[in-house]
Amino acid sequence: MKGYAMIKLGEAGWVNKIMPKCGPRDCICRPLALAPCTSDVHVVWENAIGELPGRILGHEALGIVDEVGSEVKLFKPGDRVIVGAITPNWDNEAAQRGFSSQTGGIMGAYEFTAKKDGTFAEYFHVNQADNNMAMLPDGMDPVAGVMITDMMTTGFMGAENAGIQLGADVAVIGIGPVGLCAIGGAKMRGASRIFAVGSRPTPVKVAKMYGATDIIDYHNGDTAQQIIDATDGAGVDAVVVAGGGPDILMDAIKMAKAGSKISNCNFFSGADTLPLPRLDWGSGMANKDIITGLCPGGRVRLERLAKLITYGRFDPMPMATHVFHGLDHIEEALLMMKKKAGDVIKPVVICE
Amino acid sequence: MKGYAMIKLGEAGWVNKIMPKCGPRDCICRPLALAPCTSDVHVVWENAIGELPGRILGHEALGIVDEVGSEVKLFKPGDRVIVGAITPNWDNEAAQRGFSSQTGGIMGAYEFTAKKDGTFAEYFHVNQADNNMAMLPDGMDPVAGVMITDMMTTGFMGAENAGIQLGADVAVIGIGPVGLCAIGGAKMRGASRIFAVGSRPTPVKVAKMYGATDIIDYHNGDTAQQIIDATDGAGVDAVVVAGGGPDILMDAIKMAKAGSKISNCNFFSGADTLPLPRLDWGSGMANKDIITGLCPGGRVRLERLAKLITYGRFDPMPMATHVFHGLDHIEEALLMMKKKAGDVIKPVVICE
Amino acid sequence: MKGYAMIKLGEAGWVNKIMPKCGPRDCICRPLALAPCTSDVHVVWENAIGELPGRILGHEALGIVDEVGSEVKLFKPGDRVIVGAITPNWDNEAAQRGFSSQTGGIMGAYEFTAKKDGTFAEYFHVNQADNNMAMLPDGMDPVAGVMITDMMTTGFMGAENAGIQLGADVAVIGIGPVGLCAIGGAKMRGASRIFAVGSRPTPVKVAKMYGATDIIDYHNGDTAQQIIDATDGAGVDAVVVAGGGPDILMDAIKMAKAGSKISNCNFFSGADTLPLPRLDWGSGMANKDIITGLCPGGRVRLERLAKLITYGRFDPMPMATHVFHGLDHIEEALLMMKKKAGDVIKPVVICE
Amino acid sequence: MKGYAMIKLGEAGWVNKIMPKCGPRDCICRPLALAPCTSDVHVVWENAIGELPGRILGHEALGIVDEVGSEVKLFKPGDRVIVGAITPNWDNEAAQRGFSSQTGGIMGAYEFTAKKDGTFAEYFHVNQADNNMAMLPDGMDPVAGVMITDMMTTGFMGAENAGIQLGADVAVIGIGPVGLCAIGGAKMRGASRIFAVGSRPTPVKVAKMYGATDIIDYHNGDTAQQIIDATDGAGVDAVVVAGGGPDILMDAIKMAKAGSKISNCNFFSGADTLPLPRLDWGSGMANKDIITGLCPGGRVRLERLAKLITYGRFDPMPMATHVFHGLDHIEEALLMMKKKAGDVIKPVVICE
Repeated sequence: MKGYAMIKLGEAGWVNKIMPKCGPRDCICRPLALAPCTSDVHVVWENAIGELPGRILGHEALGIVDEVGSEVKLFKPGDRVIVGAITPNWDNEAAQRGFSSQTGGIMGAYEFTAKKDGTFAEYFHVNQADNNMAMLPDGMDPVAGVMITDMMTTGFMGAENAGIQLGADVAVIGIGPVGLCAIGGAKMRGASRIFAVGSRPTPVKVAKMYGATDIIDYHNGDTAQQIIDATDGAGVDAVVVAGGGPDILMDAIKMAKAGSKISNCNFFSGADTLPLPRLDWGSGMANKDIITGLCPGGRVRLERLAKLITYGRFDPMPMATHVFHGLDHIEEALLMMKKKAGDVIKPVVICE
Repeated sequence: MKGYAMIKLGEAGWVNKIMPKCGPRDCICRPLALAPCTSDVHVVWENAIGELPGRILGHEALGIVDEVGSEVKLFKPGDRVIVGAITPNWDNEAAQRGFSSQTGGIMGAYEFTAKKDGTFAEYFHVNQADNNMAMLPDGMDPVAGVMITDMMTTGFMGAENAGIQLGADVAVIGIGPVGLCAIGGAKMRGASRIFAVGSRPTPVKVAKMYGATDIIDYHNGDTAQQIIDATDGAGVDAVVVAGGGPDILMDAIKMAKAGSKISNCNFFSGADTLPLPRLDWGSGMANKDIITGLCPGGRVRLERLAKLITYGRFDPMPMATHVFHGLDHIEEALLMMKKKAGDVIKPVVICE
Repeated sequence: MKGYAMIKLGEAGWVNKIMPKCGPRDCICRPLALAPCTSDVHVVWENAIGELPGRILGHEALGIVDEVGSEVKLFKPGDRVIVGAITPNWDNEAAQRGFSSQTGGIMGAYEFTAKKDGTFAEYFHVNQADNNMAMLPDGMDPVAGVMITDMMTTGFMGAENAGIQLGADVAVIGIGPVGLCAIGGAKMRGASRIFAVGSRPTPVKVAKMYGATDIIDYHNGDTAQQIIDATDGAGVDAVVVAGGGPDILMDAIKMAKAGSKISNCNFFSGADTLPLPRLDWGSGMANKDIITGLCPGGRVRLERLAKLITYGRFDPMPMATHVFHGLDHIEEALLMMKKKAGDVIKPVVICE
Repeated sequence: MKGYAMIKLGEAGWVNKIMPKCGPRDCICRPLALAPCTSDVHVVWENAIGELPGRILGHEALGIVDEVGSEVKLFKPGDRVIVGAITPNWDNEAAQRGFSSQTGGIMGAYEFTAKKDGTFAEYFHVNQADNNMAMLPDGMDPVAGVMITDMMTTGFMGAENAGIQLGADVAVIGIGPVGLCAIGGAKMRGASRIFAVGSRPTPVKVAKMYGATDIIDYHNGDTAQQIIDATDGAGVDAVVVAGGGPDILMDAIKMAKAGSKISNCNFFSGADTLPLPRLDWGSGMANKDIITGLCPGGRVRLERLAKLITYGRFDPMPMATHVFHGLDHIEEALLMMKKKAGDVIKPVVICE
C-alpha cells in the first residue's frame, strides 16, 4: 500500500509498505479524512522523535473500518469512525492510574508514527479498537469530525487542566488550532474575560468567534505586561500555554496571579531545559501550579467531544481554512502546515 | 424606617423599625434593586425558619451605600453595590474549612431575615462589608445585577457541584429562576445535551435560550424514565436538582448513570425525611454521589459573576419577567412570586 | 469440579459444575486462599441479588494460576495471585469515565456469583486477567493477602472518599472488617480523632489497634448525639458508613458538621427507600455530601494495597480471627460469618 | 522593647524598638517559645527579601497573649497560643479564592519580618488574631507546639499537594525539618514506600522514624537514577521537593513517573531562573504536574495540626535537637541553624 512517510530527517515523501496486520482487538481502517499536525512537521523537520526512515506520518484521522479483529465488539467493516490521535493501551498500569496518555512510559500512547506507521496511508492500524475509536455521528461533516481527534481534545484539555472557575480571567498563549480550541474550551468552562496572545489575522478572527475578548499582540510589547496592565496589575486566574518557544513559561508564570494554574498543551522543542522565572514564581511558593498533559484519547472522550459539535456547543469548521479532496493532497496539506502562511489554520484532506 | 416584614406565620405586611446600627466592619445600604425569592414565600407561608414576628423579609438586593464602619476599606457612601444574599462571617472556622455558607452552623451565613432584618426596607445592614459586597459595574442594568445575588450564584453552584465534564449529558430538574441558572451554568461548564424538567411555557422558552436541548414534561409520564429512554437506557452524567418535593431525589437518582453526581440546590420542605431509592442507588454502591450547597457568597464570587454578564457569557435579563419601580411594590412582587402564574419567572423592584 | 453454591434462596451447599472456560484475555485459577464475605450471606439468606440456584458463591480469593488465555501477558500457570473481588471490564465506557466498578451498569463489575460462578470452587475464572489480578508478593502470608481483595480495598475506599484532611475528626459507623479497614484507612489519610461506632469486644480491640481514639457504643444512647457531645457540639468532619440498617444515614448526617462528607461503603438492604433527615441535612443545603462507591478493583490498586502491607503501613492479620485449612472448610467459615459471634471478625480458608 | 533583628544584609543583632500597636482585630503577644528558621538565615545572609535594617527577625512562635483588640472574640490576655508563621489577611480577595498564603500578592501573607517586625522580641504583633492563632492545648509541650507554626504545616502541605494515593511510592528531597515533616506527611497520606534523599546522620535517623523506607544518599551517585533503579525503572508516583538548589527540579522531574505530581515546599534562591528538563518532562506533555505553595496558616489549620500531636499521629519532638531557655539564646539558636552541623535539625528557644 501507499503511504506518505518520513524518508529521513528533513525529507518526507511517498513510500510503498506492506499492509498492517490486524490483531484480535484491533482494526484496520481506510482514511475518510486526514489532517496534518504541527507534530508531523516537528517529526520530519525538527527531530522530535528521531530518525525513522520509511515511517508513515499522520495521526489525525477519521476512518472507514476495513477489517476488525476477533475480539472487537463495537465496530464492523464499513463503519465510519473517529480515531483518537492518541491510542492508549488500556491494559497498561498508567491507564488504571488515570493517565491513559502515558501508557508504556512518557507519551507512550502516542503510537501513530512514533511506534508504528501513521494514518497518512491507504490503510492504517488502530490498536484496541473498541477503546480507541468512536462512531462518527450520522450527518457530521468529516471536516468537523477530524478536528476532534487531536485539536479539540488537546486544546480543550488545556482549558480543563487550567482549573477555570466560573467568571475567571484566562489567558491563552498561541492561536494555532490547539490554542483556538483552548479559547473555545476556556469559554465552555465558564471563563469571563479571555486574553488571546497572537497576531495572525485569520486566527485572530476565529479567536474572537470562539470567545476571546482581548487580543494581545507581541508587536505591542511584552505580552505578560500587557495582560498585567489590562487587569490593573492583578494578572489572570489561569493561563493555557498552547504555543511558544522554550522560554514561554517565563511569560506564562509572570502573567498569572499568585494562586492560579498554568496549563500546558504546548510541545516544547529547541532546548534541553525550560526556564521558570524564580521571582515571578514566588521562589517556588506562589501557588502557581504548572499542569501538563497529552491529547486525551479513548472512546468516551471522542463521543463526548462529538456531542459538543452535535449540540452546537462548539463549531470546529472555521478552523478548516483549507479543504482538499484525495489522499494525494496530503503532501500539499502538510507543506501548508509547515509554512503556516497568514491565513492557514488547519488544512484537511477528505479522502473519499 | 419602613420595612416589609413577616407579621406572623402566614401573614406579611409593612412595619416600622428602628434603623440598623453599623459596626466597624459593616455598612448600611439603601436598596437600589430588590427581588423577592421563593425562600421569602417559604418563610412567611411555609414555616421555613419559624415564627419571627416583625422580622423584615428579603435577601436579594443591590444597595446604595449609606454608611460605612470605621474598618471598611473598599466602600464609601454613595457606592452602588451588589450584596450577597448569603453574607458569611469570614472569621468563622467554617470559612477556613472552605464552607463559607455554613459559618456558625447549618446555613449559618443566611443572615438576612433568618438572623436579622432583611433587605425589603428603606435601609438594611450588611455584615463584613468588604467581604460580602462588590461594586456594581458601571453601566450594568440593576435588573440584571440583582440576579447575581442569589439566583445566579445558587443556580450556577448547582451546575458547578455536578462535576460536569466537557460534552456530558446533564439533567436539570426544575425551571424556576434557580433551575434556569443551573441550565445556563451547565452550558457554561461544557455540557452537551441538557434535559430541562419543567412545563410552564415562559420558563421553557428561557430554558431553551439558556441551553436546554430537551424539555421533559411530567405530563408525558415519569420524567426519569423519559430521560432514560432518550439516552438509550444510559441516563445522564449529572443531575442538578433545582426544584421538586421531598421525594424528588427518587427521580434524580433514577435518571443518573452509575458513576455520576446529583447536585442539589433545592430547598426541601414538606417532610421530615427525604427518601433515596435503594436499588437505583445501587444499595449505596452505585457511585451516584449527592452533593449539596447553599448560595455561595463573598466579594470575589460576586465580582466574577458580574463579569459573566459584562463579557456576554450569561444574560439574566430574560428571567426578569416583571419589573416594578418603587419600594412600595415589593408586596405586589412577593405575592406574584407566591402565586407563580405561568408567565412569571422573577419580578424585580427597582427602588431608585 | 466441586463448588460451594447457593442451592436456592436460604440454602447453600456443595454442587458439581463443569469447569469454567478460559477466554483469550482470561485465566483460570485454583484457590490459594478464600474468605467468606457478609455479601455471601446477603446473597444466600437476604436475597441481595435474586434466586440463582447452583451459582457458586465467593468473591474473595487468592489464586494459583492454572491456565491463561492467549492474550494474557503478565501471568503464567503456577503464579500466585491476588484476585480483585470486583473484576471490571476495562473496555466498558464506565471504566473510561473513571468508574471501573460500574462497568456494564450499576455494580456491573461485581461478576463473581452475580454474573458467573464465584471463587468457592476447585477452579474459578478471572476475566481480563492482566487487568484484574496482581502477583502475590513473595513472602506475603496468604491470610493477609486475601484481605486485600475486598476488605481492605472497600474499607480504605470508604476513608478515601470521605475527603479527610490532615488532623480531621472522623467517625466510622460499624466495626466489621470493612469498618475496621475504614478506621485504618482514616488513620492513613491523616485523621486525628477517630470515633468508632460499635460494641463487640474483639472488633473494639482491633479498632483501637487500627487508630480509633473513641469507641461509641449504642448501648450508651444515641450514637450521633454522643459524638456531637464529645466534640462540644461541632460534630465530625467526615463520616464513613460501614454498617447499619436502612436508617443509618439519619445518624450519619446528624453527626456530621455542616461542610463535611458522608462516605458510604455499606451495602444497604431491608427497605426500598433510605431516609435522609431533612433538618440535619440543612433542607438539602448543609454541604453534607454523600459519597458512594463499590470495592475498587484493578491490578494497580491491588499492587498498591499489597505494598501497604509489605512496608508495614497496615497489618490485616488481626482481622483474621479464624483460619481454616482446606477448601472443605468454606461452609464452616461461611456459617461463622453468618452467625458473627462476638469474637469473629473474619474467617479465612487456606486451600493449599 | 528588645528584639533580635537584621542590622544590615549579612549582619544580625539586638535592637531596641518601640512596642507594636494593637489594632481592633489584632493582638500583642509575649513569646512563649521561638524557633529560628532557615528562612531567617536566608533573610539575613542570602538577601531573600532585601535590605531591612532594624527589622526584627523570626516568624515561628508560641505566644502568651498580652493585649487584644476590641474586636477580638476568641482570645484574652494570658492565653497561651499557637501563632501561624504565615498570617493571612482574610479580607483579601486571594483568601476568598482559596489561596490564603497569597493575600496581597505573591507570598503576601508572610508578614513577620517581611512586612513588619517578627517574633524574636519581647513583644510581637499578630494581625487578625481570631483568624491566625489557636489555643495551645493544655499539656502540650511548647517545644512540640512551636513546630506546628511552620515546619509541620509547610512540610505536611508538601505531602498534601503531592496527591498521594494509598500505597503510592513517594520521594522526598531534603531532610531538614520541612523535609522530615514531608516524610511524616507522606506517611499520614498513605504512602507505602518513601524514599528520603539526604545524608546527615541525625536527620536520617528521624527520617526513618517518620516513615522513610529507603535513604538515598547523593554520595552514592545520581539520586534520581538511584530511585529509578530501585523502582525497576518506574520512578515514583509523587515527589516532594523540600530542599535543593536552583536545579533541583531537574532531579525531581526525572525521578517521577509519567503521571505524577512534583510538590514543591522549597524556597528557591541562588539563580534568576529554575530549569526544567525538557525530555524528562515529556516536552511538556508527561502529566508531571508541578504544585507549589507557601506555609498554610489559619486557626483551623493550626488546631487540626495540634490534634495530630494530641492524638499521637505525629510527634515533632525528635526534630528538636537543641532546646534553649531564655529569649537571649535566640542568637545562638539562629547561628546554629545557619551552620547546620550534622546533628542539628531544629533548635528551639523556650522563653518562659
